[in-house]
Amino acid sequence: MPTVTIAQNILANNDTIAAEIKQQLTARGPRALNVMSSPGAGKTMLLERTITLLRGRLAIGVSEGDLETSADAECIEAAGARTVQINTRGTCHLEAHMIRQALDHMELAALDLLVIENVGNLVCPAGWNLGDDARVVLASATEGDDKPAKYPGMFAVAEAMVVNKIDLLPYVDYDMAKVRRQALAINPHLRIFEVSCRTGDGLDAWCAWLAAFAHAEPGVVDMA
Amino acid sequence: MPTVTIAQNILANNDTIAAEIKQQLTARGPRALNVMSSPGAGKTMLLERTITLLRGRLAIGVSEGDLETSADAECIEAAGARTVQINTRGTCHLEAHMIRQALDHMELAALDLLVIENVGNLVCPAGWNLGDDARVVLASATEGDDKPAKYPGMFAVAEAMVVNKIDLLPYVDYDMAKVRRQALAINPHLRIFEVSCRTGDGLDAWCAWLAAFAHAEPGVVDMA
Repeated sequence: MPTVTIAQNILANNDTIAAEIKQQLTARGPRALNVMSSPGAGKTMLLERTITLLRGRLAIGVSEGDLETSADAECIEAAGARTVQINTRGTCHLEAHMIRQALDHMELAALDLLVIENVGNLVCPAGWNLGDDARVVLASATEGDDKPAKYPGMFAVAEAMVVNKIDLLPYVDYDMAKVRRQALAINPHLRIFEVSCRTGDGLDAWCAWLAAFAHAEPGVVDMA
Repeated sequence: MPTVTIAQNILANNDTIAAEIKQQLTARGPRALNVMSSPGAGKTMLLERTITLLRGRLAIGVSEGDLETSADAECIEAAGARTVQINTRGTCHLEAHMIRQALDHMELAALDLLVIENVGNLVCPAGWNLGDDARVVLASATEGDDKPAKYPGMFAVAEAMVVNKIDLLPYVDYDMAKVRRQALAINPHLRIFEVSCRTGDGLDAWCAWLAAFAHAEPGVVDMA
């Protein structure tokens, strides 16, 4: 039996569950965002800062994916968002059945926005539909300015790219214009934000986009 | 048919090819090192610097794994090592059959050391035997000091950990003692090097280890 057939069956099954999740979210209210990046690009810190900045304006719930540990979920709960930890125990990405289980522990009707923080991996998560409304990829100014060209799949499926750690730009060789050019060549509709979660620079524009996204009608992602 | 059975068949087939590669390398001479990390931790720059520093002492060949592009292979060839580019076109790790094909393009008898630069991914490559003699994981001082605990599989299979970008330590929150503690709790025999590929700090100790490794007898990895 050829491997590709099996992979297709697994993905088809995932897509069926993802469609059910999407229906459930649409019925209950929250919009859903799937946040993906390399390990250490700053997904958790971006969520912490975002939750703090949008407190009182947007009710955010987080589904937190990690191979191991609940350290990130604890950080995010401390920032004030209801969080469910998913430990994949070795699986390199989140799958729709994991999200379905996490949703059983969330009061969806009380949320404006569900953020799904994926496992740190710039390759595999791009291939798995989680029933979300949009995907965001984080890049980091310390991980090199060749990432869109070298990992195009992730940038192709994203609606927005957040380039984090711009406070470190003076200390590294990172050509922001090159990154923008590479990313837009793969995905001309990509919204791009340059931020530092450490200093707070650029987070207002990001939060404004996110708030508009959360209040947008289902099926409408681009608020340009 | 349960998924796990299929995965086992794929991995068993990979292990068979890996064993053949190991035999081939042992017969021809070079020792083989599998270098793994997150995207952007600095694998390519570490290899460029290492090749330059060991020029004339060690004949190094490189098998360069990327989803797309041959940019890294070009950098490494420019540093002076014979390089074969493997583009996986979406596959998130190298597999033994890819290395077998790459070896057809290398003069193994002329090499002391074959370095396999894996796809940038801190999860999946750890599960795939490539017929190498040892594995090295790169961490980076900009990607957070929680990586061993959050991605334990990679640190468990490695013989050495190189923490890169130590020149940026003054600008980030990175607790080196915590990283060492986490990594050694997973793998007490791990050799640890702290380096900056940018400034050159720490590279002498790393190169000394590598040179000893390349000249060591097959099957002997730890030169402590």
